[in-house]
Amino acid sequence: MSAADRPAANSRPIATASQVYTWEPSNAAIAARYGLRPDQILRFDTNTSPAPPEFVARVLERGFDPPLNEYPDSSYAELTEAAAEYVAAAVDEVIVGAGADELLDMVTKAFLPAGGAALVPVPTYSMYGVLTSQRAARIVAVPRLSADAGYGLDLAAIRARLAEVSVVWLCSPNNPTGAADSRAELENVAEAAASLPDPPMVVVDEAYFEFGGETVIDWRARFRNLIVLRTLSKAFALPGIRVGFGVATRDVIARLERVRPPGSISTISALLASEALRRPELAMENVQRVTAERAWLSGRLTDAGRPPAPSVTNFLLLRIGDHEAAEAEAERLLRSGIVPRTFGPANPLRGHLRLTVRSRTENERLLEVIRGV
Amino acid sequence: MSAADRPAANSRPIATASQVYTWEPSNAAIAARYGLRPDQILRFDTNTSPAPPEFVARVLERGFDPPLNEYPDSSYAELTEAAAEYVAAAVDEVIVGAGADELLDMVTKAFLPAGGAALVPVPTYSMYGVLTSQRAARIVAVPRLSADAGYGLDLAAIRARLAEVSVVWLCSPNNPTGAADSRAELENVAEAAASLPDPPMVVVDEAYFEFGGETVIDWRARFRNLIVLRTLSKAFALPGIRVGFGVATRDVIARLERVRPPGSISTISALLASEALRRPELAMENVQRVTAERAWLSGRLTDAGRPPAPSVTNFLLLRIGDHEAAEAEAERLLRSGIVPRTFGPANPLRGHLRLTVRSRTENERLLEVIRGV
Repeated sequence: MSAADRPAANSRPIATASQVYTWEPSNAAIAARYGLRPDQILRFDTNTSPAPPEFVARVLERGFDPPLNEYPDSSYAELTEAAAEYVAAAVDEVIVGAGADELLDMVTKAFLPAGGAALVPVPTYSMYGVLTSQRAARIVAVPRLSADAGYGLDLAAIRARLAEVSVVWLCSPNNPTGAADSRAELENVAEAAASLPDPPMVVVDEAYFEFGGETVIDWRARFRNLIVLRTLSKAFALPGIRVGFGVATRDVIARLERVRPPGSISTISALLASEALRRPELAMENVQRVTAERAWLSGRLTDAGRPPAPSVTNFLLLRIGDHEAAEAEAERLLRSGIVPRTFGPANPLRGHLRLTVRSRTENERLLEVIRGV
Repeated sequence: MSAADRPAANSRPIATASQVYTWEPSNAAIAARYGLRPDQILRFDTNTSPAPPEFVARVLERGFDPPLNEYPDSSYAELTEAAAEYVAAAVDEVIVGAGADELLDMVTKAFLPAGGAALVPVPTYSMYGVLTSQRAARIVAVPRLSADAGYGLDLAAIRARLAEVSVVWLCSPNNPTGAADSRAELENVAEAAASLPDPPMVVVDEAYFEFGGETVIDWRARFRNLIVLRTLSKAFALPGIRVGFGVATRDVIARLERVRPPGSISTISALLASEALRRPELAMENVQRVTAERAWLSGRLTDAGRPPAPSVTNFLLLRIGDHEAAEAEAERLLRSGIVPRTFGPANPLRGHLRLTVRSRTENERLLEVIRGV
């Protein structure tokens, strides 16, 4: 997925904070800790959709070609073609991966030298920092503007550090703050990067694009150091299949293809992703439903004294108070089976919770617990 | 998979040799080139099994938990438990990945410093070299012994180079030669490595273990710098799901867990792999069938003037002549829809073809074409 979630420091209060790589706990683990049944657990922490597309069962019944006793087509030609068609790009301008996360890893392998540096406007999706560190590269963290300024990019601060880095990780709409950066802001960064003698690769992770952002895919010819990432995990409602893709100019894609694992996507996942990408109208229906629900939930949360930050995504960021207050509120929700996304004590959002916009029934349950009913 | 196959220089005569990362072409691409229908193509090049397990359809009908609109459990607890049970190890001695290939990548991230070096007895599975290069590390290639010596490990030559490297890539049974290294030989390497002041990590890729090798999993406590890799792609007949796992001492697993991608295995793949690992008797039936078929096919090939090298795997290595002769024979097979594994002009096996042991019907078709019927 990618702009998905899973901040490394985010898994409290369930998991220990000592590990670099502690991701969200399973329903079973949460249920066991809070004395609940797994079916009482509602995940408001992973920015997923309430249901998968209905075509999945039909597709699985039809069987697979190649069958599961053979390897998937290592070129993933059909999937790549479906993704290219969806974004109106040529097939050699597209590369697929096991979730957008794997595209992030390919970017580090192709463009981030060991011991190099990468720029990350923070707070954002934590995988950028994790993968930068795994490359033994330095993280140049540039704080985003304040909540009052909509958590926007600090353009001057970013431009001042561009010459130091090989990769710039941008996430728009941004997870976990929820707003999109404007095309003008992204253009400002891309132009400044392109003007350098040794331009860094600019990654724009558009995992949440379909919910309300603007894409910059159309800039791929203009900025030859740009790659845009997309996912099947958000608007397409299929995080369980683990498929994402990248769009860039042919030269960038060719460099990424040299480090693409030849068989990381299962045959079933490639098939389901292809089918989903050929039915973008289903994703758009999901987006419409989520957008309407976001407005409704946002209003009710505001009424309940918890006004969320403006969001064009399928999640809402709520300021609770200090870290202790946010932890206490998370604990209260968890006792009712509601799983929020929390932020570690070192995170600028440590006093916040992030909540996925889910179905009306589930959102109503969330509101009941928040109101203390 | 891993010891699977997919040698980088192997995709001739279909693909261009100029790319680092050109894997096997799809059935559709081969059919188009040879004027055949895709259903006329028989893959003798990927060391797969003739059919997936019958339980797959039933499992897919049951649906998934979590459903596909949610992320898989990022700890893959159920899958890890099933793998641990299969190899009689503790759950914290096991790590799972999107194919054994992803385990290889994790090994480089955790144990192979950028600019370091890794030892590879050659010829062997090409992914070791590919991933070593992607880490900007040096490949210390140590030739295996001659065909007459069963392509065994050159123990003295390996020991002489161990102090230079951070990782040793061993594949036993070895792909593409087909024989297993004895426990005594592997022990010799592991002991020499362990005796060094800074012991390299010794990887034993046992992808083909179930077909007739001996495992060294029982050494994980004895050699704290050992990791054994396994796959669902060979004896378990499920390469389409892309699942493999590693077994090592807790400390090694903990270091690998720090670089494990949190969600590279799809929910469906994790479920199918768990179900398969809990039915090892099905894999054993497959192994028995393949072993008997290997003996039969080996005999017929010998009768046809193409005696294969001794194999304890599900494939056979045939010496054809020089590279030109091997290419011509491959071309002749391809024109009939039979896809062999070929070796590039720089490969010590450039005069050979590698053939998967498939079903009796398919093997008979292979023999017809080889005999020129």
